[in-house]
Amino acid sequence: MTGTLGIVAGGGPLPARLAAAARASGRPVFVLGLEGHADTATIAGYPHALHRIGAAGQILGALRQAGVDELVLIGTVRRPSLLTLMPDAEGAKILARIGRAAFAGDDGLLAAVIRVFEEEGFRVRGAQEVMTGLAAPEGVLGRHAPDAAAEADIVRGATVARILGAADVGQAVVVQQGIVLGVEAVEGTDALLARCASLRREGPAGVLVKRAKPGQEARADLPTIGVRTVEGAAAAGLAGIAIEAGMTLMPEREATIAAADAAGLFLVARRFD
Amino acid sequence: MTGTLGIVAGGGPLPARLAAAARASGRPVFVLGLEGHADTATIAGYPHALHRIGAAGQILGALRQAGVDELVLIGTVRRPSLLTLMPDAEGAKILARIGRAAFAGDDGLLAAVIRVFEEEGFRVRGAQEVMTGLAAPEGVLGRHAPDAAAEADIVRGATVARILGAADVGQAVVVQQGIVLGVEAVEGTDALLARCASLRREGPAGVLVKRAKPGQEARADLPTIGVRTVEGAAAAGLAGIAIEAGMTLMPEREATIAAADAAGLFLVARRFD
Repeated sequence: MTGTLGIVAGGGPLPARLAAAARASGRPVFVLGLEGHADTATIAGYPHALHRIGAAGQILGALRQAGVDELVLIGTVRRPSLLTLMPDAEGAKILARIGRAAFAGDDGLLAAVIRVFEEEGFRVRGAQEVMTGLAAPEGVLGRHAPDAAAEADIVRGATVARILGAADVGQAVVVQQGIVLGVEAVEGTDALLARCASLRREGPAGVLVKRAKPGQEARADLPTIGVRTVEGAAAAGLAGIAIEAGMTLMPEREATIAAADAAGLFLVARRFD
Repeated sequence: MTGTLGIVAGGGPLPARLAAAARASGRPVFVLGLEGHADTATIAGYPHALHRIGAAGQILGALRQAGVDELVLIGTVRRPSLLTLMPDAEGAKILARIGRAAFAGDDGLLAAVIRVFEEEGFRVRGAQEVMTGLAAPEGVLGRHAPDAAAEADIVRGATVARILGAADVGQAVVVQQGIVLGVEAVEGTDALLARCASLRREGPAGVLVKRAKPGQEARADLPTIGVRTVEGAAAAGLAGIAIEAGMTLMPEREATIAAADAAGLFLVARRFD
């Protein structure tokens, strides 16, 4: 637990935030930024290297050279097409090991990537395991609570999100008055919320429901919300946001709750069926 | 079969097209336009009346007075919220008869509306039953056929669309290289295609798959495609469109096929599992 923490970094502020938390706790970190995904500005303050996703040989070599034993995969990654992957020699071997899982949707691919890292001798951990307080705790997180209409929409949204997750489509759904206004696929939650602003109808406001996929690998690709999610939900005229307790990352927890309180939105974390 | 055909008209060109086809076949028609939905310009050339969805008493009265025996429900209807429905006395009674189905998603609501019309003495028919050639026949409909990559995406899209339909979410899905780029909810297929233009990735182009919901009521709300769908698919960089044979309406069949041919898109109608 006290060796160098490796952070394989996709996009967004989360990798640097994790690096800061690890460093603050006295643990050495090494950030392996994924080229074209990682925010080079925010990881520049930490020991780091930048490699293409396909350059598996260089990635593994850099992690080993940095003395990494535990690894976290964190940040957004737009899944590369096989044509743009351009694997190096090691990457080609790994692709062969992954085999069909590389084509079997995000879940299968991530599970396979984690397995490869572990076979290569790294212990892969969830970001929420190495950063206390990162995962959302259960309960009403702000000042506002869902009313009966919102509770019904949460139930409907959680059901649809489970089905979507099982089909490896996405993690977020917007429901108003029992009607699914929008469903997230690769466009992301912000884009989903943006279009729902013009799809809502009169009457009781809708809800955003975000949950992990059934059988979700808890060490990668957990749903994440932040201040921007709250702002998008408010702009879409929603009543609030329901997330999955323990399986949703809230890297800006205080600011996110404060934003929900200020916007009059509820923010609730549930254990979904 | 020779009495007056009643057309309960939502939005779009389909109601007027159906009216024209019925008149051309020598059958008298009466168009009951739904206020705020029906295109009043295109139905003006036919005997018609215009009523709010909630005004069930007036709707039933107008249909009876016009001597309607067979009814078709056709055209797009944005589901009203209960607050904007403002039922008249008859409408309130019907709402009570429909009961929970009114809140149970589009499928339940439509089935209940059809049941009410039938209980009131009308025979409700599918548009494709009264207008020959309206439903898409099985097979490759244009000059282009899907390749192996597209076939794999069609299979994935048909599976996801079945799941979405079963959850009463939507009828259309865009898939590229096995990845679900976008899923239709209430925004409609045109909006789905518009956003997929910026979500596609390099390599083999994706497909639009549109299918009826499992157990779909064939007398209402069948998926529909037209020239605009082909234009949207072409603008989104897709390789083609797969629809459900017999259960998808193609009101502009020749023009739609011609547009697909001209754009280099395949257009195929399948019997999905």
